Amino acid sequence: MARSWWGWGNVEDAVTGSERAALTARVAALMPRADLTAHEAPALESLSVAAPRVAPPDTLAHLASQELGDRVSHGRGQAFRDVVRNLLGRVADVPDLVVRPGSEQEVADVLEWCAGAGIAVIPFGGGTSVVGGVEPRGLGDYAGVVSLDLGRLDRVLEVDRTSRAARIQAGMLGPALEAALRPEGLTLRHFPQSFEFSTLGGWLATRAGGHYVTVYTHIDDLVESMRVVTPSGISASRRLPGSGAGPSPDRMFLGSEGTLGVITEAWMRLQDRPRWRATASVLFDDYAAAVNATRVIAQSGLFPTNCRLLDPAEAFLNAATATSGGVLVLGFESADHPVDEPMRRALEICGDCGGKAPEAITSTDSSGNAVHEGAAGTWRSSFLRMPYQRDALAAQSMIVETFETACTWDRFEQLRATVLDAAQGAFATLGITGVVTCRFTHVYPDGPAPYFGVYAAGTWGRTVEQWDEIKAAVSEALASTGATITHHHAVGRDHRPWYDRQRPEPFARALQATKTALDPAHILNPGVLIDPAPRGAARR
Amino acid sequence: MARSWWGWGNVEDAVTGSERAALTARVAALMPRADLTAHEAPALESLSVAAPRVAPPDTLAHLASQELGDRVSHGRGQAFRDVVRNLLGRVADVPDLVVRPGSEQEVADVLEWCAGAGIAVIPFGGGTSVVGGVEPRGLGDYAGVVSLDLGRLDRVLEVDRTSRAARIQAGMLGPALEAALRPEGLTLRHFPQSFEFSTLGGWLATRAGGHYVTVYTHIDDLVESMRVVTPSGISASRRLPGSGAGPSPDRMFLGSEGTLGVITEAWMRLQDRPRWRATASVLFDDYAAAVNATRVIAQSGLFPTNCRLLDPAEAFLNAATATSGGVLVLGFESADHPVDEPMRRALEICGDCGGKAPEAITSTDSSGNAVHEGAAGTWRSSFLRMPYQRDALAAQSMIVETFETACTWDRFEQLRATVLDAAQGAFATLGITGVVTCRFTHVYPDGPAPYFGVYAAGTWGRTVEQWDEIKAAVSEALASTGATITHHHAVGRDHRPWYDRQRPEPFARALQATKTALDPAHILNPGVLIDPAPRGAARR
Repeated sequence: MARSWWGWGNVEDAVTGSERAALTARVAALMPRADLTAHEAPALESLSVAAPRVAPPDTLAHLASQELGDRVSHGRGQAFRDVVRNLLGRVADVPDLVVRPGSEQEVADVLEWCAGAGIAVIPFGGGTSVVGGVEPRGLGDYAGVVSLDLGRLDRVLEVDRTSRAARIQAGMLGPALEAALRPEGLTLRHFPQSFEFSTLGGWLATRAGGHYVTVYTHIDDLVESMRVVTPSGISASRRLPGSGAGPSPDRMFLGSEGTLGVITEAWMRLQDRPRWRATASVLFDDYAAAVNATRVIAQSGLFPTNCRLLDPAEAFLNAATATSGGVLVLGFESADHPVDEPMRRALEICGDCGGKAPEAITSTDSSGNAVHEGAAGTWRSSFLRMPYQRDALAAQSMIVETFETACTWDRFEQLRATVLDAAQGAFATLGITGVVTCRFTHVYPDGPAPYFGVYAAGTWGRTVEQWDEIKAAVSEALASTGATITHHHAVGRDHRPWYDRQRPEPFARALQATKTALDPAHILNPGVLIDPAPRGAARR
Repeated sequence: MARSWWGWGNVEDAVTGSERAALTARVAALMPRADLTAHEAPALESLSVAAPRVAPPDTLAHLASQELGDRVSHGRGQAFRDVVRNLLGRVADVPDLVVRPGSEQEVADVLEWCAGAGIAVIPFGGGTSVVGGVEPRGLGDYAGVVSLDLGRLDRVLEVDRTSRAARIQAGMLGPALEAALRPEGLTLRHFPQSFEFSTLGGWLATRAGGHYVTVYTHIDDLVESMRVVTPSGISASRRLPGSGAGPSPDRMFLGSEGTLGVITEAWMRLQDRPRWRATASVLFDDYAAAVNATRVIAQSGLFPTNCRLLDPAEAFLNAATATSGGVLVLGFESADHPVDEPMRRALEICGDCGGKAPEAITSTDSSGNAVHEGAAGTWRSSFLRMPYQRDALAAQSMIVETFETACTWDRFEQLRATVLDAAQGAFATLGITGVVTCRFTHVYPDGPAPYFGVYAAGTWGRTVEQWDEIKAAVSEALASTGATITHHHAVGRDHRPWYDRQRPEPFARALQATKTALDPAHILNPGVLIDPAPRGAARR
């Protein structure tokens, strides 16, 4: 398998042939006036980027690469706007060097060199950021930019079967991590959509949300301890199931997005591999009733693993299910006990709230994978193909992107209406046709994490700017209703304007002070969360 | 009811008469050589404290008190060493003034005055600290000390029934808070042992653990948003069920113990009042087997509300149950569904691990309180009387105190052995007789939170120093096994030496930088978590 230089995942897995034809036909049916001409990415070799401005010292030279492919693939994340800019050959901002440390000491050595030389360092895990988190944008004041690729820190170092925990290096990708834990019957059970191409360190640095909807899904809650290399020393927290000793040190680094230090390893809480599973999908005629059922289940203490409400547009587009009120995809899993009883109760709640008896309930007792049927199964397959299909459509002038948030239940109805209005308003201003879908990725007792999909027929060569206008409009809608600018996509460079309004002002000052204490030369991922240092001000 | 000036709770609830006689008889049976002469607290009026060194400005004078009773009762928490020092009339360090703001603006006004005048400010909720958290110790470099009593901020301001959340002022005591929520059918369901006399703000500032053993018990997880008055502005976080936007602002203030700002209110996540309950107690012949059963249940995903393992000494002393391996007190509760099935499964796990069929299972379906029977009920009543009995015994030269921690399951056996050895070693050095008991207050999938009780026959007039030696020995034992110095008692002034070793050094510097950013005059609770500012260094 070869990684695509310009888009998601593996070249071999790209959407082609009949899948592409079917996808194109579906979009054409929805948006008959769309120009769906397929554009090709330029050849990598045809790209022109500036020569590296910095060279590594001899002691680090063996870790550094200035190959074009390395530099280009490390200059972007995997957002729609990243993919399209690649398709258009717009690759101006790339790191001068990609450096691949093989040990914690080498991470420290790279930071020491860069701090002394005024070189910005962008920690790089799997490079799946969708918020400009790894892009060296606006760093002209630095002597150069190093992309610090943690990919060689790729091992499970220790497993504690009794406490169900493992010490795992930060550069490990999802599949390798799970493969290493499988012989112990254990799983981290953290499956973000980027799972195949993202790393533990990236999940920790960006507060990844995981796939499951309730308890033990957010990566924050799966951390026992962390090791973080900062420019002013290594931070190592104690391995603890819980603690009340001052503010949590780990919570300072969780979500710090590479601005305070480089996470090198963590003790992570694991789970036994599930044996019992039950899945079902419930159709609703009325979306408000579906939201209500979802809320009651979220507040029930049943702790479903899936409780994913697809609104009618999402159900139609991604689960091929036509409803007037949406589909609630329910799942329960356990390694300890059958889960038919909580599923029965959840379905009873749905019934009480006007949901229709499910088309099929799948209940399994096995150590293998559950069979996924009905809307749940359809939606799940679609979930894994989404990024590939996104790329295919992006090359056909479609604007295909997502954004996500979280809010309390009392505000959700207003939030969704405001967001849909804002998006449609942006479509109108741009003179384009678009659809916005909504699903819940996570549900909390006090509110959902809504995830929106945008599908619009754009104009080739202008879809990045068109998306940016839509994104600004919906971000304003989120801000105006008091929702968060991100539940699990992180802040990066793209969310900064709204993040800055969201965070309390005293916290912003505290974060800045922390930055200066840990990274006095302000070399770590400048521009993310915190402004780059003014020219020459903080750097040694 | 009148609050005791020297000890726990209400004067009218003190241990007297037949309860005292029975308690004394039990202790005498265990420790026949103990001198159990009961000593009396001196009269409040007989105490001599220095005159206040500072006077409030006219604009704040109506909020300030310099009454002896106010000053003395605000100079101490409720630890054993606090109570004994009071009994001995050792009340040297008391605040100069007690100030009771009635609004957020008045909190800000007090901070402004104190920052300008170099006066230390100690935020005071219910004053139940057991770690010297509210004691003005070692603050001679400040112009004076103000105890900032938040007790007048005592209302529930808003309830959002849909999201099950409420905006609650920080000075609200547990019973008033629950009384205000009861008409809505809601509960915060946070019941620390100090519940009756501690406040929401105190729980937040000290990361209180709550009464329940799994999910939604630690106060950290119950917070939607907070308002905090810092000397450099108000920090107000957005009300969110979850967020991935940078490091969590709330987590910076949770556990900050009054050093970074004064929490004035918070939106808190609530729960429906439970209807179904099941409780049972399982006896074990072998303690290791009991620990194993507890671990398996903690890792089962059954989410018991109680899963409290009492070791044989704890079971004997506090639940009047003689066993060779301890008692596991199990409980399940739900507002949504019957809980017999998870209880059945938990008991099956206990059976598989060598536990004996429970003496009685109590299963109730009601909107009222469950009937508590068996060892569970005995232990629960005892739990609520413990602080009063502690005071009675403290006045009879007994050393009666607790300490607590958390560790991963793989280390627990070694931890307990090391702690018991250290305590017995300290008893031997001191030439006294003592017993150490252990129970779990919380269990996580990756480890328990063990809570130890110390009962030793001390020497009147020296029990504080004797306890301090025991405490130092057991704290070293915790540190040497990599456990935390506190799971939910906070750091305060008493845990500083071990906290300083526990926290990562870069985090200590970050915290110091944050302190300077938010509290540039270093007036807030100096000495807690962070050293007081050197004379004149940071203060304006």
